[in-house]
Amino acid sequence: MTLPRSTTQRDEDLIRDFHYIWHPCTQMKDHEAEPPLLIDRAEGLHLYDREGNRYLDCIASWWVNLFGHNHSHINQAITDQLQKMAHVMFAGITHQPAVDLAHKLIEWSSPNLSKVFFSDNGSTSVEVALKMSLQFWAQTGKPEKKRFVYLKGAYHGETLGALSVSGIDLFRNRFEPVLMDNLEVEGPDCLRCPYGLTRDTCKAECFEPMEKALVEEHQNIAAVIVEPLVQGAAGMKMYPPVYLEKLQATCETLRVHTIYDEVAVGFGRTGGLFVSEQLRHKPTFLCLSKGITSGYLPLAATLTEDRIYQAFYGDHDTFKLFIHSHSYSANPLACAAANATFELFAADGFWDALKERIATLKECGEMLKELPWCGEFRQTGLIGACELVRDRDTLAKFPMTQRVGYQIYKKALQRGLFLRPLGDVVYFIPPLVIDPETIRSMVTTARDCIHDVLSEV
Amino acid sequence: MTLPRSTTQRDEDLIRDFHYIWHPCTQMKDHEAEPPLLIDRAEGLHLYDREGNRYLDCIASWWVNLFGHNHSHINQAITDQLQKMAHVMFAGITHQPAVDLAHKLIEWSSPNLSKVFFSDNGSTSVEVALKMSLQFWAQTGKPEKKRFVYLKGAYHGETLGALSVSGIDLFRNRFEPVLMDNLEVEGPDCLRCPYGLTRDTCKAECFEPMEKALVEEHQNIAAVIVEPLVQGAAGMKMYPPVYLEKLQATCETLRVHTIYDEVAVGFGRTGGLFVSEQLRHKPTFLCLSKGITSGYLPLAATLTEDRIYQAFYGDHDTFKLFIHSHSYSANPLACAAANATFELFAADGFWDALKERIATLKECGEMLKELPWCGEFRQTGLIGACELVRDRDTLAKFPMTQRVGYQIYKKALQRGLFLRPLGDVVYFIPPLVIDPETIRSMVTTARDCIHDVLSEV
Repeated sequence: MTLPRSTTQRDEDLIRDFHYIWHPCTQMKDHEAEPPLLIDRAEGLHLYDREGNRYLDCIASWWVNLFGHNHSHINQAITDQLQKMAHVMFAGITHQPAVDLAHKLIEWSSPNLSKVFFSDNGSTSVEVALKMSLQFWAQTGKPEKKRFVYLKGAYHGETLGALSVSGIDLFRNRFEPVLMDNLEVEGPDCLRCPYGLTRDTCKAECFEPMEKALVEEHQNIAAVIVEPLVQGAAGMKMYPPVYLEKLQATCETLRVHTIYDEVAVGFGRTGGLFVSEQLRHKPTFLCLSKGITSGYLPLAATLTEDRIYQAFYGDHDTFKLFIHSHSYSANPLACAAANATFELFAADGFWDALKERIATLKECGEMLKELPWCGEFRQTGLIGACELVRDRDTLAKFPMTQRVGYQIYKKALQRGLFLRPLGDVVYFIPPLVIDPETIRSMVTTARDCIHDVLSEV
Repeated sequence: MTLPRSTTQRDEDLIRDFHYIWHPCTQMKDHEAEPPLLIDRAEGLHLYDREGNRYLDCIASWWVNLFGHNHSHINQAITDQLQKMAHVMFAGITHQPAVDLAHKLIEWSSPNLSKVFFSDNGSTSVEVALKMSLQFWAQTGKPEKKRFVYLKGAYHGETLGALSVSGIDLFRNRFEPVLMDNLEVEGPDCLRCPYGLTRDTCKAECFEPMEKALVEEHQNIAAVIVEPLVQGAAGMKMYPPVYLEKLQATCETLRVHTIYDEVAVGFGRTGGLFVSEQLRHKPTFLCLSKGITSGYLPLAATLTEDRIYQAFYGDHDTFKLFIHSHSYSANPLACAAANATFELFAADGFWDALKERIATLKECGEMLKELPWCGEFRQTGLIGACELVRDRDTLAKFPMTQRVGYQIYKKALQRGLFLRPLGDVVYFIPPLVIDPETIRSMVTTARDCIHDVLSEV
């Protein structure tokens, strides 16, 4: 505990933070040298500390915020709902905010999806899909279908079920002995394509290992789970739709469910509401969370098809029901925020303006490409990522111990940007309403920070 | 789909509900005959539909509501926070609502607990405890300690990790093949005590199987998880503190962690804030959720000791950190609701009034005991449960197919009570602020419903 004793409110709060709080995904010792930002309020694209310093929320508060902070329309929706009912249980009871939301989710998603199961976060939305898939097979005469296939580098959450379909060693390795026996396959790695192809010309030759796994093992496979187009936690790794087309066709032929985890890429992030709907795919399960409330409140949904639902539908004494619940399922305040979010999506000109912002980010990416350490600038919709490398020709990485990304993070904070690089991948997932001018200044400042840090290492 | 086509808003909403929503822990076919209540608003102890019918919330909206619905103080706290900031990410950033809440949780819980890790619901609070325990042992030279011990009848949530320490067959059986290899032991069963003892005279002779399991297996056991005093989903099964005393002593001797899951019993439900603190126990992990926001918003916390925290604390390149996160960790709106909840606990006279309500419930329990089908009326704090049996002498149960509890549920709805019996256990977990007069009318009405239903079967 090296923080100084002090009587200012800020210092006192930071000392209490250090004493009492264990932050997620954080080596707490880092805070000895660099305490967390103490954020007091947020407005639009910015976070403010108590001294009035502001930070551009370049990653939308862990990829959740869509329409900016403190948005009058969403605030009003929550306030209105608060005056009627904050919460009520969702078994034996229903309420209009949930009905409206479910109706909209079904209307806007792929036409094969017809039922909405609510839960609280991305991990639980995935757990629900895994459990529904397992129980479906158990109840339709295929109990041997109980393994899941996932991609190397995949992230689907960190509850133990979700973690057992995640393919990032750093997240898994301490827990490997207790994880479900699932099947990890090599997925797309477009920057370092082993087939020597590019995103534009390939036909997803890298689908080969997945195809092999499915052909050989499909009788034991319940479902394949993927993050469509962008593997977020892997470092915003991006891959083309053709991979998903092959996946869908193969799974359909071999009778394997597909779980599209759009927790990170859903809700406008890629330029359309859902990737699966944009691509006209028909996932068996669609997992949603994060942006669903525009970053206001925890809420998640797992959408599925009627044929899945029907396998659980029957008389009481069949005990076929899906026995899964969370106390705050379909929390009315969160549903109200989500319904307001849908209204903002439907506002005049939103999608055109988003297109323009995506184009601006693309244009700004050129700046980053000029950096001598830019291994690649890649982009899908309003997600932009710059993968930094020690050597541009060999794509050799910086040593992990050098913490290049972390240094850039600290430098950027001094200049009013809140970034959070994934290793050495500096990425942008700003609120969808970021204006072109702010995109330009964000990328310019980030570029300068990268330059200043890497010129010195 | 047998609901009638209709143009009333109520019918339209119910049809949309039936079309689009898959409710948790519900056989959806039941809704053909009995649609869910369409609740429009809630106030104090009551839920209201759009026609103005009111229902007493006898189970506090899945055991979460403490101070009644639409409470001005909590509403105000949420509204105030909403105007500053609904949410911000909790890695690299902190905020006063979370700091205040963590400080209070540490102040009010057992003195050995010093750190708070936030998540979103009861399941995730348990998953966090399981993972912290596993990783602690892996990082302190005991990687073989990777199994958990749980009690038959235990409920700790339904994500696959939490489910693998839950001991209710109906919840587990479809998923058994993929669950972690944990150790289930027979726990207390006071109503049907195999040792022929009563709660008041026993010395937890039934601790024997747990002791045996721990003595034999402790070298492979990471932790024991329990719901202290009340096994909720098992049917509000209650057992005396002496069991927990033995558990604590044995775990301390054999170096096994204890996880007290107070998601259901915490926050005043038993007459004190936390069971572990009341009993002066020192759990290694304390899991909290449900009542933490007084039933307003999803939020959870896992508390632990400094010795656990220190095993994760170190330089970056040790990679000892706890890599677990949820986007909405420590959501400021939920933290604001929780801080307001603590203020209500601290209000003058609250605990004395609660004592009186608990005494009233006890007194009313006598009414239920007179029913010829009452196997037992049991009570812990403001949880009261009446276990209905076909034969009072043999304690023989009703056949499951008879759905006695469900019939009572439907009858009670007609008389303005929202109950949700667990099998044939009719129980009450009302908001903590329920007044003595309402307790009396609640129990009287429930008794009449039980009588009317069971007189006819």
